[in-house]
Amino acid sequence: MSAAYTLVLIRHGESNFNKENRFCGWIDADLSDVGNEEAKNAGEMIKKNGLTFDVAYTSVLKRAIKTLNHVLDALDLHWIPVNKHWRLNERMYGGLQGLNKSETAAKHGEDQVKIWRRSYDIPPPAVDTDSNQYPGKDPRYKDLEPSQLPRHECLKDTVARVLPYWHEVIAPAIRSGKRVLITAHGNSLRGLVKYLDNIGDQEIVELNIPTGIPLVYELDKDLKPVKHYYLASEAEVKAAMERVANQGKAK
Amino acid sequence: MSAAYTLVLIRHGESNFNKENRFCGWIDADLSDVGNEEAKNAGEMIKKNGLTFDVAYTSVLKRAIKTLNHVLDALDLHWIPVNKHWRLNERMYGGLQGLNKSETAAKHGEDQVKIWRRSYDIPPPAVDTDSNQYPGKDPRYKDLEPSQLPRHECLKDTVARVLPYWHEVIAPAIRSGKRVLITAHGNSLRGLVKYLDNIGDQEIVELNIPTGIPLVYELDKDLKPVKHYYLASEAEVKAAMERVANQGKAK
Repeated sequence: MSAAYTLVLIRHGESNFNKENRFCGWIDADLSDVGNEEAKNAGEMIKKNGLTFDVAYTSVLKRAIKTLNHVLDALDLHWIPVNKHWRLNERMYGGLQGLNKSETAAKHGEDQVKIWRRSYDIPPPAVDTDSNQYPGKDPRYKDLEPSQLPRHECLKDTVARVLPYWHEVIAPAIRSGKRVLITAHGNSLRGLVKYLDNIGDQEIVELNIPTGIPLVYELDKDLKPVKHYYLASEAEVKAAMERVANQGKAK
Repeated sequence: MSAAYTLVLIRHGESNFNKENRFCGWIDADLSDVGNEEAKNAGEMIKKNGLTFDVAYTSVLKRAIKTLNHVLDALDLHWIPVNKHWRLNERMYGGLQGLNKSETAAKHGEDQVKIWRRSYDIPPPAVDTDSNQYPGKDPRYKDLEPSQLPRHECLKDTVARVLPYWHEVIAPAIRSGKRVLITAHGNSLRGLVKYLDNIGDQEIVELNIPTGIPLVYELDKDLKPVKHYYLASEAEVKAAMERVANQGKAK
């Protein structure tokens, strides 16, 4: 099949939480200096490859929004419509949010941490509705139904809430001929990639999308991938994937 | 009447064209270093005054969009919806776009320049559809009807295309209870202020809205102004208005 559409995905650059190896999830951490540079580089790579966009989608978390702003700046595309939606947020890490790897191990035990890290469908502990981590306390989620507000998520849950946004909003935009850019998070992008490439539950847990490297999908007219590739050398991608894997999945 | 709603307007900070005293109009000039600082200060002033927003509106020109981004950054409101629309653009200066004050005087004569500067309804020369200044050549206007694409505008024309966006989009948002922020341009904001305060045609030409100083409107339930004020001292506002007036209206 020949490619009918091009879609570009970018995982946000390093945040202050990535740097400290803490579970971030729905905490609205800012980009680190490194993360800002990664985002600018992503924009330059897209520009060098001559790609452009008609519309962009991102989460309601500033590390993804600011990554997008850097890319739009590099491409001189400030004017395109930007849609921000909670369904593109990072996985909601529940009671692990804010903890670093050793704090998590001390609190829950190494074995339990391994189970959470390696499972597709076992969620971390839930936060209570009176916790500061409960999304119901944050004005950005005030229009959501209580049933939509996650108190924790396994990767399966994240995939399940990302895909409706793909089917109802992003896929129709692509089919209408719009060139789409998405800047989001490790796990919300895993959700899209799992769906597009039909990746198995266990395999997707092992897939590490590198930060700040544009991932290009060429899609046929039914939005099935013809091929995908990163806008970077194989060595750069491998090094970036290893950096991410070594963070112990505290994202 | 007591105030039911609060609306905040901000004119973008200095652009590279303001600095050089050139007619900018629909040319997509960037903010100068001074303009970036003005925008950050505007955000700090709003923060200090405890105002916040549910939604923002801006033009499709980067000097207004980047002003907005600085303000959202200061307020930690990256996540609110941002709507960009050509109807909030600066006045389209036609054949004057790109010229500085002395080039304009040399080309068209001092007397003619005075007429354009002081009139509400006499437009500058139109650009041809094969000119680089013709908006039909710019992808950001590709969904507009040719009849919607201005080849030049007097202030009356700008007011006439700004107000439908107020009536159809912004006013309903305010009535629904959303706290609205608008970052735009000298003449598109003149259009809104003229309508809100019922200012006469000749009087509005003389009104200079200072750059980078938040202008707060308190509106009653029918969206009639109860009062308005700048988030700055009277002396600061006066100095800023004079700086703008001295630019010879080359905006």
